[in-house]
Amino acid sequence: MKKPGLGTDADLYLQRGVSARKPDVQRAIANIDPGLFPGAFCKAIPDYLAGSPEHCVLMHSDGAGTKSSLAYVQYCRTGDARVFRDIAQDSLVMNLDDLLCVGATGPFLVSNTIGRNLKRIPGEAIKALIEGYEMFADKLAPYGVDLRPCGGETADLGDLVRTIIADSCITVRMRRDEFIDASKVKPGHVIVGMASAGQATYEDKLNSGAGTNGFTALRHSLFGAEVKAEFPESFAPEISDVAYLGSHRPDDPLPGCSMTLIEACLCPTRTYAPIVLRILASCRPAISAIFHNTGGGQTKCLGFGSDVHYVKENLMPLPPLFAHVRTVSGMKDRELLQVFNMGHRVEVVCDPGVADEVIGVARSFEVDAQIIGRVESGSGRSLTIAFDGSRLEFVAD
Amino acid sequence: MKKPGLGTDADLYLQRGVSARKPDVQRAIANIDPGLFPGAFCKAIPDYLAGSPEHCVLMHSDGAGTKSSLAYVQYCRTGDARVFRDIAQDSLVMNLDDLLCVGATGPFLVSNTIGRNLKRIPGEAIKALIEGYEMFADKLAPYGVDLRPCGGETADLGDLVRTIIADSCITVRMRRDEFIDASKVKPGHVIVGMASAGQATYEDKLNSGAGTNGFTALRHSLFGAEVKAEFPESFAPEISDVAYLGSHRPDDPLPGCSMTLIEACLCPTRTYAPIVLRILASCRPAISAIFHNTGGGQTKCLGFGSDVHYVKENLMPLPPLFAHVRTVSGMKDRELLQVFNMGHRVEVVCDPGVADEVIGVARSFEVDAQIIGRVESGSGRSLTIAFDGSRLEFVAD
Repeated sequence: MKKPGLGTDADLYLQRGVSARKPDVQRAIANIDPGLFPGAFCKAIPDYLAGSPEHCVLMHSDGAGTKSSLAYVQYCRTGDARVFRDIAQDSLVMNLDDLLCVGATGPFLVSNTIGRNLKRIPGEAIKALIEGYEMFADKLAPYGVDLRPCGGETADLGDLVRTIIADSCITVRMRRDEFIDASKVKPGHVIVGMASAGQATYEDKLNSGAGTNGFTALRHSLFGAEVKAEFPESFAPEISDVAYLGSHRPDDPLPGCSMTLIEACLCPTRTYAPIVLRILASCRPAISAIFHNTGGGQTKCLGFGSDVHYVKENLMPLPPLFAHVRTVSGMKDRELLQVFNMGHRVEVVCDPGVADEVIGVARSFEVDAQIIGRVESGSGRSLTIAFDGSRLEFVAD
Repeated sequence: MKKPGLGTDADLYLQRGVSARKPDVQRAIANIDPGLFPGAFCKAIPDYLAGSPEHCVLMHSDGAGTKSSLAYVQYCRTGDARVFRDIAQDSLVMNLDDLLCVGATGPFLVSNTIGRNLKRIPGEAIKALIEGYEMFADKLAPYGVDLRPCGGETADLGDLVRTIIADSCITVRMRRDEFIDASKVKPGHVIVGMASAGQATYEDKLNSGAGTNGFTALRHSLFGAEVKAEFPESFAPEISDVAYLGSHRPDDPLPGCSMTLIEACLCPTRTYAPIVLRILASCRPAISAIFHNTGGGQTKCLGFGSDVHYVKENLMPLPPLFAHVRTVSGMKDRELLQVFNMGHRVEVVCDPGVADEVIGVARSFEVDAQIIGRVESGSGRSLTIAFDGSRLEFVAD
C-alpha cells in the first residue's frame, strides 16, 4: 500500500504539516458525547469524582506544540537549559487559560507528560522543564491561582520524537451554576480584548505576545537556511522544501523591539489567570462568554454561539512580532488573523455596563485592554474584522 | 556549543535512546513534593477538588510509547487503520493499571493527547485511535470498570513527531483509608503473579502478553533491514547503526504461537481491572502492595518498600514472544528481566491466607495466576529471581 498522506497540497500551512482547522479530527470526534454543556469553550462532565449534582468536572489536555522545537534550537545555540522553563509555562497556560474561559477558578490539578529524544535532550533540559512547572505555580500562587502539580511522566521516545515534546493536563471541578457557556453568547454584549504583549505586574520581563500558536508558520517564515542547515532535527524531513524559508538568523533584531527575533518568539505564553479570576469574582453574571484565541487566532469565536455576528472593529495595536511576520512572511492578512493572536489573546464578552470594570481590572495588572468589538444578532455564525483599513469577513463552517 | 548527548554509549538500550532507569529524570524530580504517601506506587495529593479530608486525588499520565511506531508500520503495510484502536488501549492501560496498584477503583476520568505528523497520519488513523478509547471504555463497563472520556487534544506536530504519539491522563479520587501504600509492603506476604498472555473472558482475542514496555528493544531486535529500508520514519536517524538489527520480516511466524511476529508485538496491553476490582472488594485489608511491571519489568518491585528482600522463585512459563526475543536478541537474561514483563504484568502482594482467593478470582476470568514469590525481611531493597536454572540478584540503587 502507498504510504498515506504524502500528496501535495496547495496551502503552505498544510504543506508544512499543520491543518489549521483539522476537519478530519473534527469528523473523528463528531460522535463523541459533548458533555453537560454542548458548544461550550471546554467540555464538562458530571462530577463523577465526588458525586455532587451541583458540580461538574473538566479535564483539559494541551501542550507547547512545536514551540519546543525552537526552544531546542536556542538551547543548542546558547547552552542555557533555562529556555525550557518558559516552555513549561507555555504548556500549562494552553490548558489553564482555556479553563478560565468557562469560569473555572481552581484549584487546578496539573499533570505533565514529556517525551524526549534522549540523544538530543539531556537531563538538564528535563530538569529545567520540570522546574518551570513548579516555578510557574509558585509565581501565580500570590494571585490566588492555585496550581497543584500531581506528577507526570518523562518518556524516552527518540523513535517518535525528534527533540522534545511538552504536554500537560489540568483537572478542575466547579459549580455548574457558575459555568460560562459560550454557546449562549449574547448579542448586545461587547468584546473586551486583553493585550498579549507588554509586561504585566505578575511577569518578570517584557513579553512579545508570541503565545504558543502558529509556531509552524512563525518558525518557517522568519528563520532561514542557517537554522535549517544546522538543525535538521528541528523540522520534519517531509516538509524540507517548505522549511525555514525566511531570511533571518535567530539573533537578528526584531524591528521596533529590544528583543532578538528568537527571543521574541520564545517569550512564554502570558496567562490571564490573575486578571480573569478577579473579573469572575465581581462580574461573572454579566459575562456571556470568554474566548482564548489559540488555534484559529482571531477567528476562534466563530466556533461558538448561535445566530451571532461578531464584529471586531477596534483591534489593539499589532505587536512588533506579528507586524514583522506580516511584512516578511508573505501570509495574507486573512491567514494571519486565522493563525496568530495578533495582539490580544483573551476576549471577555460582557454586558456593556461592566466593560469599564473589566478593562480596569486588566489595567490594574498593567495589561492593556479595550473594547475591541461587539456581538450582534445574525444568521448562523459570522465574523467581521476591521484590519488596517480593510474589512475581512469570515463565516463558520 | 556542541549539541548535547551525542556521545557513544556502551549499552545497546541506551544507544537506542532509551535510559531504562532514567537516572537524570530521577534527579530532576528529586525535590518534587512526593504527596500524601511517599514511596507509594502512584503519587496522591489531598482532595483539592472536593475538599474532603478523608479522600485523596491522583492524576496519572503515560502513553503507548514507541509501540505506536510499530502500529504505524503495520498500518502502512495493511492499510487497516484499526490497528490504532489497540494503541488507544495500550495508552489507557498504562495509566489505569498503575492506578489499580494503589487500590483506586474509579470512576476513572480520561483525557487523551494525540500528536501526529499530518504528512504520515491521516484522519482515519485518528478516528480509529479515538474510537479505541471509547470502545475500550464500553468493553470494560460491564465489569464495573467506570472509564469516563473527558475529551482530549489532537495536534499536528510533524516538526516534533515522526509518526504518531498517543498519550493519556487519568484522574481518580479515592478514600485515603483504602489507599494501598507499597512503601509499607510486608515481609511474610506472598507475591501472586497474573499472566500477561492468554485470553481473558473480557478479551476478544488471544494476547501474546506483549504489553507496552520494552518496545525499543523488541522492535529493533526482532525486525531487520526490510523494515528499516521501507520505514525510515519509524526510528530516530541518530540510532541508525543500531536500528532494526533483527533478522525477521514482520509476517514471519512467531514460533510456538499462531500469530505472526508483528501481530504478537501489537497485541493490546491487557488490563487487569476487572480482576483487581473484584480482589479489592474482598481482600483489600490483606494486600500490602500491588505492582504493575512496566518500565523495569520484573524488577519493578525494587523501587518500593524498606528493608525488604523480594524472592521470585516460581515465575510463570515464558510466553512465546519473550522466549523468541530471548533466542534472537542477544540480550542477557538479566536485561530481559529488566525490560519485559516476561509473563506476568501485575503482582498482588498479599497475606498467604488470601492467596488462593486472589488466584481464584484471576482464574475465574481465565487469567492464569500463581504464587510466584514472597517478600522477606532484608537490608535495603533487594530481589532474587530464579530464572531457567539460574539465580539472578538485583539491588536497588
